[in-house]
Amino acid sequence: MRLQDIIREVPDFPKKGILFYDITTLAKNPPAFHQAIDQLAEHYRDRPVDLVVSVEARGFIFGAALAYKLGAGFVPVRKPGKLPAEKVRVEYALEYGTDAMEIHKDAIEPGQRVLVFDDVLATGGTIAAAIDLVKRLGGAVIGTAFLIDLTFLNGKQKIGDYQVFSLIQY
Amino acid sequence: MRLQDIIREVPDFPKKGILFYDITTLAKNPPAFHQAIDQLAEHYRDRPVDLVVSVEARGFIFGAALAYKLGAGFVPVRKPGKLPAEKVRVEYALEYGTDAMEIHKDAIEPGQRVLVFDDVLATGGTIAAAIDLVKRLGGAVIGTAFLIDLTFLNGKQKIGDYQVFSLIQY
Repeated sequence: MRLQDIIREVPDFPKKGILFYDITTLAKNPPAFHQAIDQLAEHYRDRPVDLVVSVEARGFIFGAALAYKLGAGFVPVRKPGKLPAEKVRVEYALEYGTDAMEIHKDAIEPGQRVLVFDDVLATGGTIAAAIDLVKRLGGAVIGTAFLIDLTFLNGKQKIGDYQVFSLIQY
Repeated sequence: MRLQDIIREVPDFPKKGILFYDITTLAKNPPAFHQAIDQLAEHYRDRPVDLVVSVEARGFIFGAALAYKLGAGFVPVRKPGKLPAEKVRVEYALEYGTDAMEIHKDAIEPGQRVLVFDDVLATGGTIAAAIDLVKRLGGAVIGTAFLIDLTFLNGKQKIGDYQVFSLIQY
């Protein structure tokens, strides 16, 4: 099954001129959802993953299922104020202004092998911030994974030397 | 493994007087995460599930992994403005005021067997609203599932005749 045929393309969302890749049409399709998770997991077959870290909220959908498939745990990175216990915060630049995200301080033990997942790699700001949080907790980032890499936005350049794996490239 | 021993209890979150049950300590623990998903899935072994529907954002974590395990698809219910395509909206009462949530109009085909999942059953307002959305799309709700049922809040009364299954009760 060609997964990109199942992803809905929505013009002018969230604002005019942006073509939005909607992964909900993939997630609701049982064979496609399973194929996507299995193909992602297959890539890490020979590289143990202790934790999958994903960013709120769409990243949780495929990230948590991938963690389950890999036999790993799952750690959410959330918007400020959502996590109840002691946490670490990072601020990152948006097109206009800044945003912030948080992770629980005890979410990762030093040395744990962490795969950082998000559904879409765009400009890379979000994933770079998530990597920063993982490193500040002492996690060993073994790579980054995405359903979709919007390669024309060149998000890879913000990810540095970490491996970038994606199922679909536009 | 006793899953309730792994859930962190945070007093006075999100506000004074509330004891918050933090499921992130369970999700990050690989054996506990897997046990929880497997125990949830086991309950539906003899009852086919086409789709798992969960509410943003914590519900996505266990809901999506459960969908994967069940061989089902996953459908997110989201806060207003997040879903890109045509959608249906429901408003529901909070302690003070109202809130709203949305689902894509084409997320469920009439007659599909839907399990509605959330991490915690509290007063039941959220899950009742999610059930309402599923029914408006013609989905057949086969039941509701939770990691945690705060039974003292009696959320079951808002769920009507649908089955309520939970792993942990307080």
